Amino acid sequence: MEAYLDNSATTRVLDSVKEIMIKTMTEDFGNPSSLHKKGVDAEHYVKAAREEIAKTLKAKPAEIIFTSGGTESNNMAIIGTALANRRRGKHIITSTIEHASVYNVFGFLEEEGFRVSYVPVDEHGHLRLDELEKVLDDETILVSVMYVNNEIGSVNPVGEIAKLVRAKAPRALVHVDAIQAYGKFRINPKQLGIDLLSVSAHKIHGPKGIGFLYIKEGTKIRPILFGGGQQKGMRSGTDNVPGAAGLGVAAREMYNDFDKKTDYLYHIKEMFIEKLGTIEGTRVNGLTGRDSAPHVVSVSFDGVRSEVLLHALEDKGVYVSSGSACSSNHPAVSGTLKGIGVEKEYLDATLRFSFSIFTTEAEIEYCIQCLSELLPMLRRYRRM
Amino acid sequence: MEAYLDNSATTRVLDSVKEIMIKTMTEDFGNPSSLHKKGVDAEHYVKAAREEIAKTLKAKPAEIIFTSGGTESNNMAIIGTALANRRRGKHIITSTIEHASVYNVFGFLEEEGFRVSYVPVDEHGHLRLDELEKVLDDETILVSVMYVNNEIGSVNPVGEIAKLVRAKAPRALVHVDAIQAYGKFRINPKQLGIDLLSVSAHKIHGPKGIGFLYIKEGTKIRPILFGGGQQKGMRSGTDNVPGAAGLGVAAREMYNDFDKKTDYLYHIKEMFIEKLGTIEGTRVNGLTGRDSAPHVVSVSFDGVRSEVLLHALEDKGVYVSSGSACSSNHPAVSGTLKGIGVEKEYLDATLRFSFSIFTTEAEIEYCIQCLSELLPMLRRYRRM
Repeated sequence: MEAYLDNSATTRVLDSVKEIMIKTMTEDFGNPSSLHKKGVDAEHYVKAAREEIAKTLKAKPAEIIFTSGGTESNNMAIIGTALANRRRGKHIITSTIEHASVYNVFGFLEEEGFRVSYVPVDEHGHLRLDELEKVLDDETILVSVMYVNNEIGSVNPVGEIAKLVRAKAPRALVHVDAIQAYGKFRINPKQLGIDLLSVSAHKIHGPKGIGFLYIKEGTKIRPILFGGGQQKGMRSGTDNVPGAAGLGVAAREMYNDFDKKTDYLYHIKEMFIEKLGTIEGTRVNGLTGRDSAPHVVSVSFDGVRSEVLLHALEDKGVYVSSGSACSSNHPAVSGTLKGIGVEKEYLDATLRFSFSIFTTEAEIEYCIQCLSELLPMLRRYRRM
Repeated sequence: MEAYLDNSATTRVLDSVKEIMIKTMTEDFGNPSSLHKKGVDAEHYVKAAREEIAKTLKAKPAEIIFTSGGTESNNMAIIGTALANRRRGKHIITSTIEHASVYNVFGFLEEEGFRVSYVPVDEHGHLRLDELEKVLDDETILVSVMYVNNEIGSVNPVGEIAKLVRAKAPRALVHVDAIQAYGKFRINPKQLGIDLLSVSAHKIHGPKGIGFLYIKEGTKIRPILFGGGQQKGMRSGTDNVPGAAGLGVAAREMYNDFDKKTDYLYHIKEMFIEKLGTIEGTRVNGLTGRDSAPHVVSVSFDGVRSEVLLHALEDKGVYVSSGSACSSNHPAVSGTLKGIGVEKEYLDATLRFSFSIFTTEAEIEYCIQCLSELLPMLRRYRRM
């Protein structure tokens, strides 16, 4: 048996996504920039995708800019607004537990002369509003926080954060990395006071290599890639028609029967956590109820190194992640776990289990069974 | 009947490309950054693609960086090297007939304080070496020229250009936009003295949303997107596995039976030009023999506006481009046509016909037949 429980790293593409991609790669394969029918046909797919996506956010289609994925969305949101607004101030704010595609961008801007404040989080992984309040000032031009943390599934109060920013630094922009949140939460950026919102397709059963950035109408931002002026000059480059079409379909599917899907995910998560409770020496990091994301569980294990357990599970066909998968072959110690105050001995003994709508109860049972068998064995081995 | 003669804008995806993309989207859909088998399996596709591509350029796999396409490749090559080398000098050079994804990047860098020289071309669209020699100086850090022009198919003497740069400004880097050349010419960047080379997949029957930048080992360049540190930190973001795999297959296919494919393209082009000669009031811009690209023909028409003819052809199922398709819904007057000295009256009376290995003789016959019928009619109409 196999159990793919690494859906926060990436997900399987939906059949409906695959179908529209095949169609736009082999039949309606035109370049939307071409003036003839083949171009116009291709453009329709991009337009339809933009409209589908806009609908899920109660936004306008013109507020959706396609990018090559979550990393580009985050880079564009942060670099694009920082450089466009630098004359008004050079202070930018983020948290201590952001994804690398946010915190490394802040690192770059720090080198370029921006002043950066890193706001800590509490033990649940929530941004400390009191600490944010302290650093917001007249020179603040941007606050960037994640919606759902990719390692522990904590959910930031993004509405409250945006409200605080508006109150204390009315001209600062609010960017939200929603890469782990989109498709799992109903998000209305306008209502929440969010100016920019990053999304990646392959986290929601869409294709890799595509994502989007929501940019509220009127937001001062400049592009980070220059060229043929596609997407009203905001993001040059031949439109990735199959990618955009695939993302459009995935977005629609995720928000179709949304409550049912979310309920199912919480059910799977609760089942996993409950059964995990029967295994000695395990502890869940972060919150576990409806106040946390439905698809991520971070578990620390007594007396077992995460890499060893990860590979032992892999041998059984259970695929999970140690910390976050996104920073690749550099298994650095997790900033999130440190940020929420996980004890040193557990930093290197933590795995992330992440689910999708395709995760079955049988997979959860199997995973738990594998853990029950492996943990005592690995712990014995370690003691030897 | 239909005749898709807009292959310089984009091409149909190969079936073999489609197959590997389906496989990596639905079966081997892992994230290469994941440490388990699903991640490792996915990584193999990326590695294999990188090796296939490297082989076509007689380069090392580590010299191939995947990007989201030609536009990002050009942006990365130019911004990445300009910013990495700015302490050594702030003079950068390009030509007057580059693609928007090059010249608009130079425009951006000019605003950022770089000094830019724009070198003119001769009547064939070749960079004027004498003019290049005049502007190369001690402060020159980068020269960026295209291999094949996208509008008229002229082929720059990139080897000679690189040699001249080495002689006059030994520390300057040479970037070549090979987006219209790769797959049509055998390119050996090392032998040619090229440091950076941009390629796009969808111009060679690969997928949209993926491309690569060849970066010669040891070249001083910094990334333009920051994040999880994928691709040795040079290009962060979850690897676009299906895209890379598709590009790898397309690259292999293009250079498989290469001479046969190229001969066929030149045959189609010669046939088109010969038959075009029988139609009154037509003239081909640029060279037409083996000293030009095998897949692009630029034709000016007496007394007919290009947009009118384009849409008349479209009604017949013949799809072509007015100037370059890449700058989208902004049909500006072509810089290339102006650059090679095309008379004013023809600037707005020129179409680009571009072929692929799937273009048939029957399509050429049909296109010529349509032109023969349409041109007299449209010219009469205009006179009324």
